[in-house]
Amino acid sequence: MTNSTFPQLRKDPIVDRWVLIAPERAERPTELEEPAHLAHHETCPFCEGREGETTPEVLAYRAPGSRPDGPGWKLRVVGNRYPAVRGDILGKPCIDGLFAAEPGVGAHEVVVECPQHEASLAALPQEQIQRVFAAYRDRLKALRNDERLAYAQVFKNHGVAAGASVEHSHSQILALARVPHGLREEFDAANAYHRAHDRCIFCDLLAREREAGVRMVNETEYVAAFTAFAGRFPYETWLLPKRHAGHYDRLTDPELTDAANTVRTILRRLGEINDDAAYNYVLHTLPLRAADSPAYHWHIEILPRLTGVAGFEFATGCFANPVPPEEAAAQLRAGI
Amino acid sequence: MTNSTFPQLRKDPIVDRWVLIAPERAERPTELEEPAHLAHHETCPFCEGREGETTPEVLAYRAPGSRPDGPGWKLRVVGNRYPAVRGDILGKPCIDGLFAAEPGVGAHEVVVECPQHEASLAALPQEQIQRVFAAYRDRLKALRNDERLAYAQVFKNHGVAAGASVEHSHSQILALARVPHGLREEFDAANAYHRAHDRCIFCDLLAREREAGVRMVNETEYVAAFTAFAGRFPYETWLLPKRHAGHYDRLTDPELTDAANTVRTILRRLGEINDDAAYNYVLHTLPLRAADSPAYHWHIEILPRLTGVAGFEFATGCFANPVPPEEAAAQLRAGI
Repeated sequence: MTNSTFPQLRKDPIVDRWVLIAPERAERPTELEEPAHLAHHETCPFCEGREGETTPEVLAYRAPGSRPDGPGWKLRVVGNRYPAVRGDILGKPCIDGLFAAEPGVGAHEVVVECPQHEASLAALPQEQIQRVFAAYRDRLKALRNDERLAYAQVFKNHGVAAGASVEHSHSQILALARVPHGLREEFDAANAYHRAHDRCIFCDLLAREREAGVRMVNETEYVAAFTAFAGRFPYETWLLPKRHAGHYDRLTDPELTDAANTVRTILRRLGEINDDAAYNYVLHTLPLRAADSPAYHWHIEILPRLTGVAGFEFATGCFANPVPPEEAAAQLRAGI
Repeated sequence: MTNSTFPQLRKDPIVDRWVLIAPERAERPTELEEPAHLAHHETCPFCEGREGETTPEVLAYRAPGSRPDGPGWKLRVVGNRYPAVRGDILGKPCIDGLFAAEPGVGAHEVVVECPQHEASLAALPQEQIQRVFAAYRDRLKALRNDERLAYAQVFKNHGVAAGASVEHSHSQILALARVPHGLREEFDAANAYHRAHDRCIFCDLLAREREAGVRMVNETEYVAAFTAFAGRFPYETWLLPKRHAGHYDRLTDPELTDAANTVRTILRRLGEINDDAAYNYVLHTLPLRAADSPAYHWHIEILPRLTGVAGFEFATGCFANPVPPEEAAAQLRAGI
C-alpha cells in the first residue's frame, strides 16, 4: 500500500471519511500568498494570449474561425496543471484490514471564466456569467462519457481565505471514480425523506422557506435563494431551481440564465456587505451515472469565508456561525 | 424559532449536521489579523498582572498564599469573554418540521497556558506543558458535575491560519449539552467494530501501525504517535495511550507526563519543518456521562494548517492532502 502510485484515495481507518493524497498539489505555485500578487498580472497563465502556458483546452467558447489554444475566446476549460486526480493511472482498490485505498482516478479541470485579467466573477457582465454556468453544463455532460467517473464536483474558490492560489477569475471541476461521502450522506438523507413522505425534501424546504420568508434572499421566475437555516458560514446562501430537477446539466436555458444572474446578484451584494469577501461556491447535483430522481434536487451553496475554521469545527464537525441566518438574509435583501 | 434566544444549536434540514449560531462571537476582537499584532503584547489580557481583564478564574495552579484572580500563578482557566455557548440560558429543543434547534447551553473556557507572553506552547518547558494537560484533566472532571453537559471538547488553535485570535499561548474547552455529530460518528464506528471483532479499533490500529512502522513518529513507555493513514492535513499526527482507556480524565500521572512531552516534541519538530506552522490539536475522549468502554480509546489529533480548506473539501467532505503520510512520518522522525 505504501508503494502505491499517487494520487490515491484513502479511507480513514475509523470513520467513513475519505482523503485524497495528492503530492502533485504540493508543487502548485501560490501567487496569491505573496503580498505584491497584483504584479503577477503580467505573467498570468489564464490571460488571453498566454494559452500556451496552460494544458490544451477541453472546451472553449470562441469566435468563429479562431484556433484552439490560441486567442479569440470568451471562456476556456483546461486541465489543471497540478491535478489532484489523474486520468492516466492504473491500479485497483486495495483493502488491508483497517487500511483501504484506491487509485485517484479522475479529471481535474479549470474553467477560465474570462479572457481579460479580472479577479472577480461578480464583476463580469451577465452574459459572461451565463457562459460560466453553461460551461459547467457542457463539461458535466462530457465527463459522463468517461465511464470510470462517478461524480463531478464543480466548485469555485475566490480569495486567499477561500483557498484560491491564482487571481484570474476561475472555477474548477474535479471528477472522481467514487461518489464522495459528503454527497452520499446528502443523497441518503434525501432518499430516506422521500421514502417516508413521498416528496422531495428540497422542494419541501423551499416551500417552507417561502412561507416563512425570513431567510429568503431573492426569487426569480425559475430559481430561489435563501440563507441556510443551519448555515456553517456567515451569509451562507443556497440557490435552487423552483422546478424539481436532480441533474444540473439538464437545466433549461431560462433556468441557466436565472441561476447565473442570481448567483451574480448575491455575490455582488456579499462583496458590498463584506468588502470583496472570500467565498467558495459549490454545486450539488446527482452522480453522473444516476437516473433522474424524485428525491434529489440540484442546488448551489454559496459559502462566504469570513470566519476561520478552527480546532472546534474539525474536532466535532459542528461549525460556529456568528451571524444568525435571518439577520444575514435581511442584510442581503436590503441591497438587492 | 427565529425569535429564540441565542446562542442556538441548529440541525441542517437535510443531513445530520449541527451548527452553533453564536452572535456573541462576532464581537470578538481579532488582534492577530492586524499586521502589527506583536505590539498587542503590552495590552495582552492573558499576561500575569492583568487578571482583571479576564472573567474570574475557574481553575488556577498558583503559588501558595497567592490570591485568586491576582498574580502568582503558573496556569489559569477562565471563562471565554466571547462565549460560543452559555450556562445561563433557558429554553427547550424545538422541532418544526425540517427546522430543529435547541438552546446553546454549555461552557466555553480558555486555558491560559503560561503567565508570560509566550505565543508558542512548544516553546514552554516540559513541566509547563504537563500543567496544561493536567488542567484539561481537572476541567473535564469538574465539567462532569454539571449534569446538563454531554461532551467537553478540548482544542487548541495556534496561528491565524488555524483560527487563533489571541497570540498568548492558550487552548479552549467548549462543553455542550449534546454529543457533537462528528464524535458520534466516531463512537458509532468504534462500537460497530467492537461488536464485530470484540476488540478496540484503536488498539488494533496502533498494533498495525507499530507492525508497519512507516507512519510511526514516536513511542514512549506510555504513549505512541503516528501520522494518520488518511490524514486530512499534511503531517496530521495522532497520539494514543498504549493502555486501552476511554476517558482522558482518568489517565495516570505517568501517562499524562508522556502525553504532554510527546505532544511538545511533535509540535517542536513540526515547527522546525514548517517554520512555526499554524496548527490545531483536538482531544477525542468519551462523552462526560459515558461509562468506561472497551470499544473507545481517547486520543489527540494534531492538525497542521499548511494548506487551505477550499470549496472541494466543503462540497464533498473529502480533503486533499499533498504530503503522503509515510513521507510526513519520515520527516518528523528524522528530527526527534
